[in-house]
Amino acid sequence: MSEKLDQLNKLYAEIDDLHRAAAILEWDQQAYMPPGGARPRAAQLATLARIAHEQFTSDRMGYLLDSLEKELGDQPYDDDNLSIVRVLRRDYNKAVRLPAAFVSELAEARGLATSAWAQARHANDWAMFEEYLARMVELKHREADYIGFSDRKYDALLDEYEPDMKTTQVAEIFEPLRRELVELVRAISEHADRVDSSALHKEYDPDKQWLLAHEALRTIGYDFHRGRMDRVPHPFCTSFSIHDVRVTNRVIPDFFNSCFFGAMHEGGHALYEQGVDMKYERTALAGGTSLAVHESQSRMWENMVGRSRAFWEFFFPKFRKAFRKNATGLDAEKMFRAVNEVTPSFIRVEADEVTYSLHIMLRFEVENLLMDNKLRVSELPAWWDEAMSSYLGITPPTVAQGALQDVHWSIGLIGYFPTYSLGTIFAAQLFEKAQQVMPDLQEQFARGNFDNLRGWLTENIYCHGRKYTLNELAMRITGEPLQTRSYIKYLKDKYSEIYEL
Amino acid sequence: MSEKLDQLNKLYAEIDDLHRAAAILEWDQQAYMPPGGARPRAAQLATLARIAHEQFTSDRMGYLLDSLEKELGDQPYDDDNLSIVRVLRRDYNKAVRLPAAFVSELAEARGLATSAWAQARHANDWAMFEEYLARMVELKHREADYIGFSDRKYDALLDEYEPDMKTTQVAEIFEPLRRELVELVRAISEHADRVDSSALHKEYDPDKQWLLAHEALRTIGYDFHRGRMDRVPHPFCTSFSIHDVRVTNRVIPDFFNSCFFGAMHEGGHALYEQGVDMKYERTALAGGTSLAVHESQSRMWENMVGRSRAFWEFFFPKFRKAFRKNATGLDAEKMFRAVNEVTPSFIRVEADEVTYSLHIMLRFEVENLLMDNKLRVSELPAWWDEAMSSYLGITPPTVAQGALQDVHWSIGLIGYFPTYSLGTIFAAQLFEKAQQVMPDLQEQFARGNFDNLRGWLTENIYCHGRKYTLNELAMRITGEPLQTRSYIKYLKDKYSEIYEL
Repeated sequence: MSEKLDQLNKLYAEIDDLHRAAAILEWDQQAYMPPGGARPRAAQLATLARIAHEQFTSDRMGYLLDSLEKELGDQPYDDDNLSIVRVLRRDYNKAVRLPAAFVSELAEARGLATSAWAQARHANDWAMFEEYLARMVELKHREADYIGFSDRKYDALLDEYEPDMKTTQVAEIFEPLRRELVELVRAISEHADRVDSSALHKEYDPDKQWLLAHEALRTIGYDFHRGRMDRVPHPFCTSFSIHDVRVTNRVIPDFFNSCFFGAMHEGGHALYEQGVDMKYERTALAGGTSLAVHESQSRMWENMVGRSRAFWEFFFPKFRKAFRKNATGLDAEKMFRAVNEVTPSFIRVEADEVTYSLHIMLRFEVENLLMDNKLRVSELPAWWDEAMSSYLGITPPTVAQGALQDVHWSIGLIGYFPTYSLGTIFAAQLFEKAQQVMPDLQEQFARGNFDNLRGWLTENIYCHGRKYTLNELAMRITGEPLQTRSYIKYLKDKYSEIYEL
Repeated sequence: MSEKLDQLNKLYAEIDDLHRAAAILEWDQQAYMPPGGARPRAAQLATLARIAHEQFTSDRMGYLLDSLEKELGDQPYDDDNLSIVRVLRRDYNKAVRLPAAFVSELAEARGLATSAWAQARHANDWAMFEEYLARMVELKHREADYIGFSDRKYDALLDEYEPDMKTTQVAEIFEPLRRELVELVRAISEHADRVDSSALHKEYDPDKQWLLAHEALRTIGYDFHRGRMDRVPHPFCTSFSIHDVRVTNRVIPDFFNSCFFGAMHEGGHALYEQGVDMKYERTALAGGTSLAVHESQSRMWENMVGRSRAFWEFFFPKFRKAFRKNATGLDAEKMFRAVNEVTPSFIRVEADEVTYSLHIMLRFEVENLLMDNKLRVSELPAWWDEAMSSYLGITPPTVAQGALQDVHWSIGLIGYFPTYSLGTIFAAQLFEKAQQVMPDLQEQFARGNFDNLRGWLTENIYCHGRKYTLNELAMRITGEPLQTRSYIKYLKDKYSEIYEL
């Protein structure tokens, strides 16, 4: 390895350490921190962010990247070292546009807003969060201005989570999809009696739910030697190293899906992070390549695996063992149908596969309104209620079940939501391919074998870390760029069968 | 405030942020981290330590201290700003002697050794820890050489935990005390039948123990809004801010004392950290002033409060409510006597007040042998067993109950143990004064009122943070320097009465 490459890797490893340390502080903030800790924690996060940003945007980093681009120019595209330089260059060019003081300001605002959000949501009180969100929106406006954009201000934010994706592209994907989904929801609503999910809305002992969620994670191959699951108000997955990837989750005592599919969803993210080639530890290639690719994995394991008939053929006996009383009158087939009930609901993370993307489209719409200065933060809850009525025909009874439900905006994640749907779309494209390559995949699931799917995903996606972009992965694996055809086909096939459309 | 003072405080605040972030990573490492996380965590801690050290020992810090010493020279000794500069100067002069690379090396070794220790202790296997300890001893030798010493190498290490304390002074305090303690233990052993502690060695439901430990913490005034308690292999207290001070604890299912008095002990540390004047947040004055003063608080709340007759007059009904079956045949008086049983035992943290310091003297002796190159790490377990036999007349049945019992050496704390006894000695000196000032203190305890003691300690010790040293506090509060008279009197009075000597 060249001396400069060695220097670059050493410099980046320490920046990575700072980012991971911040992730630990943020995890604790959600999972364990007492209320008094909020303000000092925000200051600590701001300091870590500032130092990491200063080191990353240092002249030395710029010099090393310049030198190494020349030195490695002849290497093949997928050479590890060239890929490290390529990925760092992309991050670097964006980072140098943000002043260190702004990065620190944003980190501190995130720290404060997260705690305020958790309290506001708990108290069902929008007013407790409004000023923090207004501050965050103002900061994201400034961030977009720093980063720059040619068409829409939202492009600058979207690019952070999904490199090279544009607002108009997302709109072009969403618009026809919305029509398909609305049509499918309508058709299903006329056959609503085909599915009975009442068994899921019973008392489920929280401790047993927690144990079964662990069982689900073990089933799909999550490595507890390199991870653990803790309780938080809003589930997420976070990675402190390829060797320490944590999931978080919550339990709703009278609804089965939340904890169980929360574990499957975050477990999907975690499989991705745990599956990165260990040689990339503390390099720029460690971690998932983009949010949409990340979501393709969480949504695939949650829905295409966890809500498949085959999965429940294998898993239903475990469910019955844990919840004998609630399982009375149920069987694998009824369970499969119950967990796939399509019905308009308030909470995005608990939405079914068909209505899910409508929740995303609503958020995409409102985030654009905020970034185009066409909506004030104070008007958001009312706008939300109207939009829910127009998208899904229902109105949230409380703001906690409405505009306050997601943690994202409090931690500055504006432009992030579309990646959930883009990821879901990609998941279907990948899953179609996986089934072509492994035609007996469903039979494998029914036998409790998820190793081949995980192995195929590891080989094709996980192990590469950040080396390839979404579109590069799509081309390499499926031979075509991201497309919605597979997704629409997947939904129509699955739900036509379930609802006898 | 002068411009330079402002700059100093800003610079230090960020160094403080880095130290607190490291404390969070270390807390997680003990409380929650999965085994796989050990190696990357060590790297992260090393990076935080290195950056904090570099910033602290920067020329800028030296320049600001030089300038401010001139600028503030006329201020009274206890002026906040002058005190900040004085305390930073003491730390700075020591820190600049340690190369940044060494600090980072030490932090990484700590990270690795802590995990190795936890696994070795769990497996009762000295060999799993030996090489890590040997490495740590080697590092502490180098540290002492960097810091420098005129008499004993151990002085350099001791000074880190107890500023200005010398090895010979400790020996001078310990030697006569040892004779008194050995004599007292001997006298008590002839009256051993006066106390029956069998009720404490029964099955105590772990969850109920945990709840009662919370009750104990609430009783003494620990603020859960600014703290929490988590399970670890070896209890400790850590502070992420004056607003986020955490205790950790463990539960032994068939022994009452461990969890309960663990909470009282760590709670004492925590009251100190929570009691620092909030205006010192993110300054050099935030936190306890020295380890001995810290231990004076943990030992006072654990023993002088928690093992007092008056405490159990108040607390026994709560104990009985939690453990109705085990409480059969007990009353407050019997409980008071039971928790004060004096008997040679293997585990330091569970030792009674009389034998406790003998455990410390053993550690003081062996640490000096290691630092004087008179004992090899591989010889330590055998030495330990012999020393236990000579000090306490017993031999540990396992190495986990012997040389592997304490976390300290794995995190580089050599020179720390003596502060436990110095603190205990100081606690008696302080407590004697508190009882002079508040003659009805025991009656207050019996009524469940611990606010006046905590208030008096807050006003005289806690609120000052690091402003005064141990001896300064002793002089200010009791009018004399640290002395063992009060401690010996306290032990003789208490145990002569209990054991009818």
